[in-house]
Amino acid sequence: MASLEEKRHTLAHVLASAVLERYPHAKPTIGPAVENGFYYDFDFSGGEAPKEADLEKLQASMEEILPSWTSMTGAEVSKEDARDRFSGNPYKLELIDGIVEAGESITLYTAGDFTDLCRGGHSEQPAHDIKKGSFILERIAGAYWRGDEKNAMLTRIYGLAFDTKKELEAYQAKQEEAKKRDHRVIGEALDLFHFDEAIGKGLPIWLPKGNIIKEELENWAKETEREWGYERITTPIITKEDLFYTSGHLPLYKDSMYAPIQIEDANFYIKPMNCPFHHKAFAARPKSYRDLPVRYAEYGWCHRYEDSGSLFGLMRVRGMQMNDAHIYIQKEEAVEEFVRVIQLHEYYYKTLGIKDYVMELALRDPNNMEKYHGDEEDWKDAERMTIEAMEKSGVPYKVVHEGAAFYGPKMDFQIFSTIGRAFTASTNQLDLFMGKRFGLEYTDKDGQKKVPAVIHRAPLGTHERFIGFLIEHFAGAFPTWLAPVQARVLPVSDAQADYATEVFKTLKSAGVRVELDDSKESLGKRIRAAKQEKLPYMLVIGDKEIEAKAVSVESRDRGQEGAVSVEEFVSRITTEIKDRA
Amino acid sequence: MASLEEKRHTLAHVLASAVLERYPHAKPTIGPAVENGFYYDFDFSGGEAPKEADLEKLQASMEEILPSWTSMTGAEVSKEDARDRFSGNPYKLELIDGIVEAGESITLYTAGDFTDLCRGGHSEQPAHDIKKGSFILERIAGAYWRGDEKNAMLTRIYGLAFDTKKELEAYQAKQEEAKKRDHRVIGEALDLFHFDEAIGKGLPIWLPKGNIIKEELENWAKETEREWGYERITTPIITKEDLFYTSGHLPLYKDSMYAPIQIEDANFYIKPMNCPFHHKAFAARPKSYRDLPVRYAEYGWCHRYEDSGSLFGLMRVRGMQMNDAHIYIQKEEAVEEFVRVIQLHEYYYKTLGIKDYVMELALRDPNNMEKYHGDEEDWKDAERMTIEAMEKSGVPYKVVHEGAAFYGPKMDFQIFSTIGRAFTASTNQLDLFMGKRFGLEYTDKDGQKKVPAVIHRAPLGTHERFIGFLIEHFAGAFPTWLAPVQARVLPVSDAQADYATEVFKTLKSAGVRVELDDSKESLGKRIRAAKQEKLPYMLVIGDKEIEAKAVSVESRDRGQEGAVSVEEFVSRITTEIKDRA
Repeated sequence: MASLEEKRHTLAHVLASAVLERYPHAKPTIGPAVENGFYYDFDFSGGEAPKEADLEKLQASMEEILPSWTSMTGAEVSKEDARDRFSGNPYKLELIDGIVEAGESITLYTAGDFTDLCRGGHSEQPAHDIKKGSFILERIAGAYWRGDEKNAMLTRIYGLAFDTKKELEAYQAKQEEAKKRDHRVIGEALDLFHFDEAIGKGLPIWLPKGNIIKEELENWAKETEREWGYERITTPIITKEDLFYTSGHLPLYKDSMYAPIQIEDANFYIKPMNCPFHHKAFAARPKSYRDLPVRYAEYGWCHRYEDSGSLFGLMRVRGMQMNDAHIYIQKEEAVEEFVRVIQLHEYYYKTLGIKDYVMELALRDPNNMEKYHGDEEDWKDAERMTIEAMEKSGVPYKVVHEGAAFYGPKMDFQIFSTIGRAFTASTNQLDLFMGKRFGLEYTDKDGQKKVPAVIHRAPLGTHERFIGFLIEHFAGAFPTWLAPVQARVLPVSDAQADYATEVFKTLKSAGVRVELDDSKESLGKRIRAAKQEKLPYMLVIGDKEIEAKAVSVESRDRGQEGAVSVEEFVSRITTEIKDRA
Repeated sequence: MASLEEKRHTLAHVLASAVLERYPHAKPTIGPAVENGFYYDFDFSGGEAPKEADLEKLQASMEEILPSWTSMTGAEVSKEDARDRFSGNPYKLELIDGIVEAGESITLYTAGDFTDLCRGGHSEQPAHDIKKGSFILERIAGAYWRGDEKNAMLTRIYGLAFDTKKELEAYQAKQEEAKKRDHRVIGEALDLFHFDEAIGKGLPIWLPKGNIIKEELENWAKETEREWGYERITTPIITKEDLFYTSGHLPLYKDSMYAPIQIEDANFYIKPMNCPFHHKAFAARPKSYRDLPVRYAEYGWCHRYEDSGSLFGLMRVRGMQMNDAHIYIQKEEAVEEFVRVIQLHEYYYKTLGIKDYVMELALRDPNNMEKYHGDEEDWKDAERMTIEAMEKSGVPYKVVHEGAAFYGPKMDFQIFSTIGRAFTASTNQLDLFMGKRFGLEYTDKDGQKKVPAVIHRAPLGTHERFIGFLIEHFAGAFPTWLAPVQARVLPVSDAQADYATEVFKTLKSAGVRVELDDSKESLGKRIRAAKQEKLPYMLVIGDKEIEAKAVSVESRDRGQEGAVSVEEFVSRITTEIKDRA
């Protein structure tokens, strides 16, 4: 039985066969399996090229061809034979020359009446393996030959393919849902943020409504961190380069940093991370074992270089505000503290209804050991201690052998939105290296100077990515405590204007983010507008409500809740907000 | 009767006479009156130079000389006579040549047996005019001849002088008090902030205790601004240069900005102010007259170039967080709104016990009109409207004809600390220029597009300068709501440890910033430590307090307040904090 990847690869061949049937002038180039399906790149410059509207017909041809592909077999051929067969196709000729240069053998694969230059990795019985309805042609895009913009522009046809029709449909439904939940679209529709060309790419302005979400998250973090024993500090945004030479980020991390600014006789960098500043804050005053653990928290503002092509809404930006903190602790207590950090993540995720998450521990790449600093014993200790903490926490985790920081292993939290998309939300480290590097110390019980372990943590990640995630997770229907507008008062007509204003003021003075919509539009239209904005509560007021000193409550999540006294509604909503329910 | 300035100038002569009596080799150079007194620069290179310890003797000589100076008279002399008289003093010769070159006449002034080259402006009867005890020699410093470091280093002797002994003593007492209140000294002693050489000058780290003050101020501003109808936004810290060309800050304001960072093909600047970003936020969505006024607030993070010599503690820094906001409003309503902005200042100042403040309106310098942008009518309107608002507010103000921004008049608030020192805390503007420049508009009732007036305001200035001011104003004894530690629990001995811990926890869970000091030190020593840290409350716990379920309260400001039940104390202190009393 063929693997899914083999089937996807085979379908690329079927596509090429269908294309040649309908577009005999097409020159096939390469066609691999990819995540979720396959593609094939063609040069159509010799005649007509297919449009998106033509995909259906190509798809039909593929379905016609497939039953005849009962087997698919490969054969080794000589360079001459290969060049001969593909003599009219300069792309294939270039590939053949490359294979020969690399000293590899040339293989051709044939199924039905189609033969292609290929390394193999297909279904051997395509007609049997590939289920009806399990694949679909998706879209057409441009692509340079070999990804190089100096080369010819080809036409790439993408297809989706899964083992079964059901799986394909599930994937498509998820994609459809993700599209509806696209944080860029929702962010625009709900006036959360704005990118301005004159300011530059990757640098969002948080508009009032988005800023409310940001501040609610930040207040929550501050409140929680206070309870969990953190202190807050504020550190500068620019620094002399000395600091990053001490940390070792220069020159190692230079590609992610912006060019320096010269001030008088020194080079200053805009910071890409907060760590070295926190270390300096720790070192500002002598510390004893009684002061430890010291937990410094700061929603620090960092800037990292990203090329403009890789920027993506809030998900990949150039300036970011990070839920950062560093914990300075005796080495013997570091494992316990790291477990607490994991538990803090769980507390946040639970409140936000994030049910799926997994930790990924990135260790050193054994084939590339020279890029890491620090001594071997510290590395081993840090790895052992991190794994011990992850084990103790009971949260599922996996280990990969690449992606460690140059100074220690790195643990990421991957969280999954309601529709199952994965986001890397938070990076954490148990670090035995930087304390030494920065000469940090505390006086222990025995009067000895010792170096603290440092824990780096950022459970809520950056505002930018985390709110981007939350927009998708909630599809813009934020829980009441996070919602920019929590309730809207809707008088049926002008006759209820005074009472509606009174209700509005009562809610406002109770701290609720409430609006009054007494515009001339019909009630129906105003209700539709409130629903479009995904407001948690609509409070309709007619004569009956005035008489009963009540409001008629419609909850976004629970539907009609009937008439409720104003007092009772204030109590309900303020409790809901306070509990972050 | 001589003016104070004339008396000060005369005293510089008396000083020179006394110096020559004791140091005949000294070469006097120049000796003017200055703020608070006078100085005289001498070249002592021909022999011994006085030290600070010698000032008392010089002072005694001055007091001996003064009674004999019953009159002081001037006489014009020829260049030759003057050069002859000062033939051994190259400094005076240089001065004489300068006078001749400028085509002015040379005058010598004589009193007692001392004659000096001088332009005049003295007391005519020094012995009568200058009161006993009204002056004192203050200190010795180095100074380059004519302020140029390429010239010889001279010795400058400073004196203080006032009309009466009482005024001198009052000034000295104020100086003494200001020294005790020096924000750098108190900030260090109370662990509020820290400057680190590796990060760079003018870039403070806010340590946990200072950060509490910063956050309390910020929370207060947020709460107040919410009540006053502001919305909050967050804008990027870096921007493409385009934005500052649109605003006109480039190239005009370039000297205050850091060098640009190139990212891909564009130049980015780190922002020196928030205005252009707020304008972009306003422009992000269409606005109607119903949306106005739009009030965007942001504790924005700005960076300005200051040369390292002018940096001074928190008072002059390179990175600053500003209590900024911009109000977009119909022009007809702008005066009323500007009055409200002035009232907001008054509200803040009243809460903080700042009793003396004055507004200073900076208009265009009539001798330098080409440096201002915008059309004449807008300037006249903005000036008239600002003055109208200041008049309406009833707050005292003065007008100066320099210091306006290039795009409009500028109104500063000067506030005076408890000891009477002035600080420029807040800059405000009623701006009819930037709206046009940025193409801002709203749709008016009549369907016409109109340009809003923009009000710039920052009542709490920057965190850095404002907290610097508050440290001096309160001499570190912050009101309870601002105090980093609000209360400390002090058990008399180990016997009260459990109850003390209980009290500590009760206060903590009530949101009070409380500490427990159960160290082995004597109670007296622990009390002294708490007083040195200027904590608002000490809660002493002995057996009697346990029995009564009470704490013995000592208030920093009101002294012993006796035993108070824990419940009662929690209620008192939380009310005091809530009311910002």
